[in-house]
Amino acid sequence: MAQVRLYVDDALGAGQPVTLSRDAAHYLFGVMRLSVGAEVTLFNGQDGEWRARVAEAHKRGGVLEAVEQTRAQSLPPDLWLLFAPVKKARTDFIVEKAVEMGVRRIVPVATEFTNSERVRRDRLQAHAKEAAEQCGGLFVPEVAELSKLRDILADWPDGRRLMFCDEAEAETGEGSSSARAGRFAAASERGPWAVLIGPEGGFSDRERVHLHGLPFAYVAGLGPRILRADTAAVAALTLWQMQLGDWT
Amino acid sequence: MAQVRLYVDDALGAGQPVTLSRDAAHYLFGVMRLSVGAEVTLFNGQDGEWRARVAEAHKRGGVLEAVEQTRAQSLPPDLWLLFAPVKKARTDFIVEKAVEMGVRRIVPVATEFTNSERVRRDRLQAHAKEAAEQCGGLFVPEVAELSKLRDILADWPDGRRLMFCDEAEAETGEGSSSARAGRFAAASERGPWAVLIGPEGGFSDRERVHLHGLPFAYVAGLGPRILRADTAAVAALTLWQMQLGDWT
Repeated sequence: MAQVRLYVDDALGAGQPVTLSRDAAHYLFGVMRLSVGAEVTLFNGQDGEWRARVAEAHKRGGVLEAVEQTRAQSLPPDLWLLFAPVKKARTDFIVEKAVEMGVRRIVPVATEFTNSERVRRDRLQAHAKEAAEQCGGLFVPEVAELSKLRDILADWPDGRRLMFCDEAEAETGEGSSSARAGRFAAASERGPWAVLIGPEGGFSDRERVHLHGLPFAYVAGLGPRILRADTAAVAALTLWQMQLGDWT
Repeated sequence: MAQVRLYVDDALGAGQPVTLSRDAAHYLFGVMRLSVGAEVTLFNGQDGEWRARVAEAHKRGGVLEAVEQTRAQSLPPDLWLLFAPVKKARTDFIVEKAVEMGVRRIVPVATEFTNSERVRRDRLQAHAKEAAEQCGGLFVPEVAELSKLRDILADWPDGRRLMFCDEAEAETGEGSSSARAGRFAAASERGPWAVLIGPEGGFSDRERVHLHGLPFAYVAGLGPRILRADTAAVAALTLWQMQLGDWT
């Protein structure tokens, strides 16, 4: 049986005690039936991965003791995923995939054609934590509050580049006098980036023109077929990771 | 509301009547509430996409009439996806993603670490059809029966190349005297290909050695994090489509 992996908020170091929340204690001792002396794997996004042992096990709490570091901390590239929330299950999938593919921050954005008005940030953050626990990750990306795409673009951080995926990529961009966006296939700049996935209905014409006019933006195409948002997220992150990220 | 898209088995041509199955009639007239004169979109994987009109609507049947072709037929590249079935929902996802990403044939394979012994081929085929209907595709890949990986490799078709994704890619391959497999990143051969995704536990050592020894095989890595099988399928198909397929 695979060992239990837990994300914790505490600092991790040899002999360091980790006090369990009620939920974590219920999971370890109620669901997984671990008892004193059992081993688990811990990570906190800062101190690497640690082998730990159950020191105290109660119904509503407990203490783990970190024993030794098993992997050094590593971080995904400084990449944000911006995506337009879709139906609940697909949104969960996008968060899960973003964690597996390796991003630092997950930013739900409302576009003109976004259907979903509300996003439960806490639920998505919990989902990101679980995904990291299950995929052997050492880092849990922060899930931001839902923002309007136009507000994010108006207040875009200096030095961060943006790859956006445009279904109509073939028809626009090149030759348009207002287009300042580059083509992602030719981009070689390292450093902070973001990948933007549009909603299932695509961007509005106004959004498309705006994106193509941004000097920090790079357009990428995702082939001749229409992809669902969760498929597009994995495909776009694959392109980015292969070209500029830690897959090379 | 988006127009109803239906895959049909019949030939499509101007004025051609298409007799509906009981299931299709129930969907169109019971679920979608269409009546005589309503328009739908049809495709059959051979004759392109057609605008059609409801000519007769009954509870248990009906007739559509093809009016005009709206898109010419296009086929995905001659690419097979070989994958080790996982839990039901994830297997459904892999089939759906394969259709969106563009493959000709979907082949479930049993590896040494495959958990799932049975695959309902008819259910997966129906799932592929629905995915094509929903993603605007013009082609439904055939879903093959479950085969053993070693049998497929032993009877491999002449001229078809194989990209396989190896989590341990960094440690093997180069420098091993038995390795005949190339590196996918350097592959430029067009023509028939297949992409193989391993089970969630990875390939066995024996399978890995076998794969690395195949003269028609090319190894690819999918980054430093562990990907679920459905994520790996999209990522691997993205790599292939960008390098050798119809995304370029």
